[in-house]
Amino acid sequence: MGEPGQGFPTSFPWKGTHMEKPIQAIQENHRFTAEERRALYKAVLTRRDVRGQFLPDPIPDEVLARILTAAHHAPSVGFMQPWNFLVVRSGEVKKTVHDAFLKATAEAAEMFEGERARVYPKLNLEGILESPVNLCITCDRSRTGPVVVGRTHIPVMDIYSSVCAVQNLWLAARAEGVGVGWVSIFDNEALRETLGIPDDIVPVAYLCLGYVSHFFERPELETAGWQERLEARDLLYFDQWGQGPSEADAELTERVAGDQQAVRDSRFLDERF
Amino acid sequence: MGEPGQGFPTSFPWKGTHMEKPIQAIQENHRFTAEERRALYKAVLTRRDVRGQFLPDPIPDEVLARILTAAHHAPSVGFMQPWNFLVVRSGEVKKTVHDAFLKATAEAAEMFEGERARVYPKLNLEGILESPVNLCITCDRSRTGPVVVGRTHIPVMDIYSSVCAVQNLWLAARAEGVGVGWVSIFDNEALRETLGIPDDIVPVAYLCLGYVSHFFERPELETAGWQERLEARDLLYFDQWGQGPSEADAELTERVAGDQQAVRDSRFLDERF
Repeated sequence: MGEPGQGFPTSFPWKGTHMEKPIQAIQENHRFTAEERRALYKAVLTRRDVRGQFLPDPIPDEVLARILTAAHHAPSVGFMQPWNFLVVRSGEVKKTVHDAFLKATAEAAEMFEGERARVYPKLNLEGILESPVNLCITCDRSRTGPVVVGRTHIPVMDIYSSVCAVQNLWLAARAEGVGVGWVSIFDNEALRETLGIPDDIVPVAYLCLGYVSHFFERPELETAGWQERLEARDLLYFDQWGQGPSEADAELTERVAGDQQAVRDSRFLDERF
Repeated sequence: MGEPGQGFPTSFPWKGTHMEKPIQAIQENHRFTAEERRALYKAVLTRRDVRGQFLPDPIPDEVLARILTAAHHAPSVGFMQPWNFLVVRSGEVKKTVHDAFLKATAEAAEMFEGERARVYPKLNLEGILESPVNLCITCDRSRTGPVVVGRTHIPVMDIYSSVCAVQNLWLAARAEGVGVGWVSIFDNEALRETLGIPDDIVPVAYLCLGYVSHFFERPELETAGWQERLEARDLLYFDQWGQGPSEADAELTERVAGDQQAVRDSRFLDERF
């Protein structure tokens, strides 16, 4: 079927009686070109959570600035932009953060049983000292006052906004050839103390950034046999939780399964665009 | 300065004594081409939170499948992939969700004061009925058992993973020309009941998806004068919370400010790549 949404608008809803023509500037381009779409999916599919392959090469300021610009243009509830970006380059600060990691990961190792208890200590879980730049992304929950559009009923929305900033940054970094690893094995209070983060600010993500010798083809936990990639088709429900596809939804389900197989076979980017 | 990380690795850390050559398949391409990088930033910068410009045109299954594929390839803590994708097309279900929105937004309207109380009812805050596809992205906190690598000390990491899936989907949708709006003015319990979501599953995001007559150039809350875009340079700290740039960090700070001005002037994509 022909795909709408490409180029000029296919209808003008403000010509009816219920809407006025918008006075805002609008984007005229809708759908990206095949090459542009391929690039976006390439970032999504080749992004890795990098732990152990960091090079000491510095990240040029212009590159780091662009990555931060991507983060700053993430969506945020009520446009509150609740994030700060705490850039850590000090070896001393990194060392203290690393100590907090070591303490927490030793505690974590005790929580696993059987085969996983044996494998856990062999996993690469951070690159705090090796990566040239560490970055803590936070959430200032009172950034724009106590009442925020869209946060009135689901208070955690502001923290979700900071997570969106993380994901924007992660994809932009991948496009720049910069690896990012999200380290989450800390006591958050230790992190807060080390970085001087006040009580009313939430540390959302502690990231390690740097160029890498290589990006792995697949997630390391998948390769290590720790956890398989789930079948996306099994995660789809329709209209109600637990409800599988109707006949009308069968095509979507098959295409999702086909896409996943194409990703697995490294065919997706070449075949879909 | 020359930028490392482009093309072939610039060093081989596994040739030292402390690492072994990885046996995993690796990606040989690091930095994307200028055109590819431009496309990634284009998605980041032109993505909008769409409320009121949805067209009734259906989203082709192949497009929706690709968008869902992007979501499923988000990062997740311990590779737990805690998300489900509940596709809502039923008019009846949408109507009940919309009723929950109406109830919540009436409550929210009472919370604002002064000018904001006057403006709030005029904001476009959802497109539940107009968009052809609604999508609830959830988090199954027990997906891979009680102990998860990377979630041992920060339990909320699994929910953050589902948020990363939202942001992947949002950017992929923008590239496909599909608008996405995140509706968060609900009582989550009402949403849970309407969609039959069990108590141990967290509804993370309720999204409206569809082609649009247009994407706005800027966020609607910015245009409406509700909230300004913050200066990114003011959100940067160095090594400690609240600490401004050292002399060595001045260049980064200036570049972040310059990037933001370039975005504001619609020069960023053309000038940076």
